[in-house]
Amino acid sequence: MSLEPELVPGGLARSIEELRLVDHHVHGVSARDLSRRAFEGLITESDRPIPEWMTQFDSQVGYAILRHCAPVLGLDPHCTPEEYLARRARLGVDEVNRLLLGASGIGHFLVETGYRSEEVLGPSGMAEAAGVPADEVVRLEAVAEQVAAEGCAAWAFAGRFEEALWERTRTARGLKSIAAYRHGLDFDPSRPTDDEVAEAAGSWFAAGGRLADPVLLRHLIWTGIDRGLPLQFHIGYGDPDLDLRRSDPLLLRGLIELAEPAGVPLLLLHCYPYQRHAGFLAHAYPNVFFDVGLGVTFTGARSVALVAESLEAAPFAKVLFSSDAWGPAELHHLGALLWRRAMARVLGEFVTEGEWSVGQAIRVAAMVGGENARRVYGLGS
Amino acid sequence: MSLEPELVPGGLARSIEELRLVDHHVHGVSARDLSRRAFEGLITESDRPIPEWMTQFDSQVGYAILRHCAPVLGLDPHCTPEEYLARRARLGVDEVNRLLLGASGIGHFLVETGYRSEEVLGPSGMAEAAGVPADEVVRLEAVAEQVAAEGCAAWAFAGRFEEALWERTRTARGLKSIAAYRHGLDFDPSRPTDDEVAEAAGSWFAAGGRLADPVLLRHLIWTGIDRGLPLQFHIGYGDPDLDLRRSDPLLLRGLIELAEPAGVPLLLLHCYPYQRHAGFLAHAYPNVFFDVGLGVTFTGARSVALVAESLEAAPFAKVLFSSDAWGPAELHHLGALLWRRAMARVLGEFVTEGEWSVGQAIRVAAMVGGENARRVYGLGS
Amino acid sequence: MSLEPELVPGGLARSIEELRLVDHHVHGVSARDLSRRAFEGLITESDRPIPEWMTQFDSQVGYAILRHCAPVLGLDPHCTPEEYLARRARLGVDEVNRLLLGASGIGHFLVETGYRSEEVLGPSGMAEAAGVPADEVVRLEAVAEQVAAEGCAAWAFAGRFEEALWERTRTARGLKSIAAYRHGLDFDPSRPTDDEVAEAAGSWFAAGGRLADPVLLRHLIWTGIDRGLPLQFHIGYGDPDLDLRRSDPLLLRGLIELAEPAGVPLLLLHCYPYQRHAGFLAHAYPNVFFDVGLGVTFTGARSVALVAESLEAAPFAKVLFSSDAWGPAELHHLGALLWRRAMARVLGEFVTEGEWSVGQAIRVAAMVGGENARRVYGLGS
Repeated sequence: MSLEPELVPGGLARSIEELRLVDHHVHGVSARDLSRRAFEGLITESDRPIPEWMTQFDSQVGYAILRHCAPVLGLDPHCTPEEYLARRARLGVDEVNRLLLGASGIGHFLVETGYRSEEVLGPSGMAEAAGVPADEVVRLEAVAEQVAAEGCAAWAFAGRFEEALWERTRTARGLKSIAAYRHGLDFDPSRPTDDEVAEAAGSWFAAGGRLADPVLLRHLIWTGIDRGLPLQFHIGYGDPDLDLRRSDPLLLRGLIELAEPAGVPLLLLHCYPYQRHAGFLAHAYPNVFFDVGLGVTFTGARSVALVAESLEAAPFAKVLFSSDAWGPAELHHLGALLWRRAMARVLGEFVTEGEWSVGQAIRVAAMVGGENARRVYGLGS
Repeated sequence: MSLEPELVPGGLARSIEELRLVDHHVHGVSARDLSRRAFEGLITESDRPIPEWMTQFDSQVGYAILRHCAPVLGLDPHCTPEEYLARRARLGVDEVNRLLLGASGIGHFLVETGYRSEEVLGPSGMAEAAGVPADEVVRLEAVAEQVAAEGCAAWAFAGRFEEALWERTRTARGLKSIAAYRHGLDFDPSRPTDDEVAEAAGSWFAAGGRLADPVLLRHLIWTGIDRGLPLQFHIGYGDPDLDLRRSDPLLLRGLIELAEPAGVPLLLLHCYPYQRHAGFLAHAYPNVFFDVGLGVTFTGARSVALVAESLEAAPFAKVLFSSDAWGPAELHHLGALLWRRAMARVLGEFVTEGEWSVGQAIRVAAMVGGENARRVYGLGS
Repeated sequence: MSLEPELVPGGLARSIEELRLVDHHVHGVSARDLSRRAFEGLITESDRPIPEWMTQFDSQVGYAILRHCAPVLGLDPHCTPEEYLARRARLGVDEVNRLLLGASGIGHFLVETGYRSEEVLGPSGMAEAAGVPADEVVRLEAVAEQVAAEGCAAWAFAGRFEEALWERTRTARGLKSIAAYRHGLDFDPSRPTDDEVAEAAGSWFAAGGRLADPVLLRHLIWTGIDRGLPLQFHIGYGDPDLDLRRSDPLLLRGLIELAEPAGVPLLLLHCYPYQRHAGFLAHAYPNVFFDVGLGVTFTGARSVALVAESLEAAPFAKVLFSSDAWGPAELHHLGALLWRRAMARVLGEFVTEGEWSVGQAIRVAAMVGGENARRVYGLGS
């Protein structure tokens, strides 16, 4: 990776390249070889089949793969999709994962295990494939659905969930809520009563299906706050299962204020296109942190704009890095590479314009790239 | 037009300059000579009189006219409004239209005929003035209001509208809904029943006025989907008749999902300042396409930012070009010119930064400039 | 201040540096020496204590102080917070205020006196400290709360408020509403009836506390419109007392339209991150004006982006400058300095790209920097 030395002062460029990142929200890499159809279906957030009149390679993330991942696999930048996928198949998925994860410079993974985890590596598999530590982030809804799947009376659900959550998170570093997907963030923020929870659990058990009742989603969140681990929220950009309008982080204001006395860090993930809204919340509330994770990968050459918008109102101690990658190791690689490139360009411009010192830029890159996550999740240095 | 060769690789600049664009949403040019007051009133979306303490020339679109249209009329760039309007009057509107349309490099117009069409040229007039093909896009509300004007029983409205729409669109290339203007996009997306339509038609006929009942607006949209032509929606930026808050494209999510099985392309027009929301929808749903039409013209020197934001999440097969010009041919000219300039600068930057190849940039410019529209509307090549 | 002559044409840079700005919405400077804790607490909009694991100097506004205010106090740019605060303490607050206000080049202050005014200088103190004229902007809610504090029957409140407002604004230049803070902008825009006002006043007097009833907030606004002075609205970015989601300026559409016949200028303050929404309103409605005040200071090196977004849809006669500074004179200084820097860069880029003439850029800088405010508030030249 070249960080354009003419635009980015040398010390800053080198410092950002050498950062051992903490990816505070990521999923496992896929350990299977992938057909072209399967690969294209995994480099989009859409869950619909790719229409026959287009290819997902004609997108920012597609062009970023051909630009930045191809050289890691020994190809020229800007090769064709056919060349890329042929080389990928020839190397085999284990070697591809080893190469792409290794070159990402990520020094610590916090692996969220609640989404189709049987199809991708878990924390120990990630640690092995990348040769660095990997810890777990537990998805609240997955634990609750496991409790329901094992069978439980409605009145007993709250207690069983609490037991299961404590058991499941003995070594976990954080929790995750996907209330944005299951309902939207426009829910009553207060903690539901025991009776409300029991009644909602009864309705859910009778109806079956996934957990989507807002009373139960709130109950999970509040039990998560009791658990005391840093609590991540999916915000903004994601797949079509989500109503983007109802995943504006400003909808969380009531919950943020109610949760403030508990002192639990609330981490807003991705946030695109609401990164300025997230920055306002991180500015206003000591318990709010955020990243622009997934949006960076999927906007490719344009990710500089997102990263720039994430460095406006929020104090720099409140901004984190994540890739939110799931599946192809290209996404893990790009999450880190595009973030470094964007930070180098944005901070480099602050320095070349005379607004910041090189030392300030290096300091902020280190904070966002890892120090803030190490402090919030207690990872040690 | 100079595309700043030092910033834009030569091959890309030339390729973008030479594109024969498809303007997939445009209105006719005015065929009348215009006073200064009339001209200023047509280079704003506001329908209010221009206050005496300002001139609309002191705006991005005003400065863009003086910069880019003046040379087409044989004047120096950055001339005064007085010089510009004097030259315009001396040349006469026919010559002005011929010069500005000719220099726009638009190769095919899809002319929406539902707005004050008696004051501007229709498709055949546009074809004649510009010397290129021009097809029609039919506004659903205009057809329905014509049906009402001709008189019809409430119970017969649905059938009469269907007949009229099929008749009116025999050679049309697309349909257009202005539900954003008439109600806002926050309507129940489901298809109304026959009884609901008859009742709403009865109320409308009794009350008179323009069609603004959400039941009827939905009925028009669903009948349009039955018709099967690509369906355009006004989104975002427009005149004060519109509540911008209720024209966020995310409000269309329910309709998009219900319409998905029909396979009809839904085209979100303009979208400013919600272009990132539109990009998310185009990323998530195969049936969604969008452009940043009108916003490009009215933001002038700043239109680069809008075009850049339109090239983030959406696959490049889902982004189109339009001018949405109505009236003065300056708007048609600027729509094309400012789009070319913005694409050259945005894609040129991707290339000079090493993120994209020149070939990828040329390919995307051609897709957005015309190929996508030719495929969606079946225009042939 | 260096405006990077290589990017900004010399005449434009000089012209912007020499502008005597009208700061049309500002508060007084603090006349007390400040501890580090107190100083850090005043360079954030958050009202929470700064957490021990961070310093507010690690933020855009913090780095901007070390970059731009340090040299005014005789220090090197990018000094440490410790060096900065030590020098500040040694000089004493009077000298610091004199230096920072003097170097700001602000030629006229419109001082809003309704927020903790006992802790900061009033208009005459500001005029004395800065050596330039300072006039008053009166906060509607402060007048109403004074009326309530003096005791008054519920039925008499409307009349007493009207009297007090006329009395209090004999020499004032404008009014200010903080309905965004007290309720949100999602209120019924119509003028309440006398009975509604009396009833709401009775409930307020019985309950005590600050004025937050939407009926009363509307009554204040409509009485303010009757008073006929330009009326400022807090919009967008502010402290956590505010629900940012409910301070979107688009929520004011109904009020804007109802107030239009009165001809009173409505001035939308700050607007971050809704500056494009404000620009649309200023484009559509002759009675709407806006600025990007507070956001400029708090986004520091990134304020160029905000200023650029404020120069899109709105005619240039509708955009104003303000700092919204309160307390440390650093905020007054940065408000002016960062605005000049951003305007020079944004307009300079329009010129170097060949889109605008230097004359147009100088003209727009002068309009936004002061001429528009002088016209709207009747300040003379």
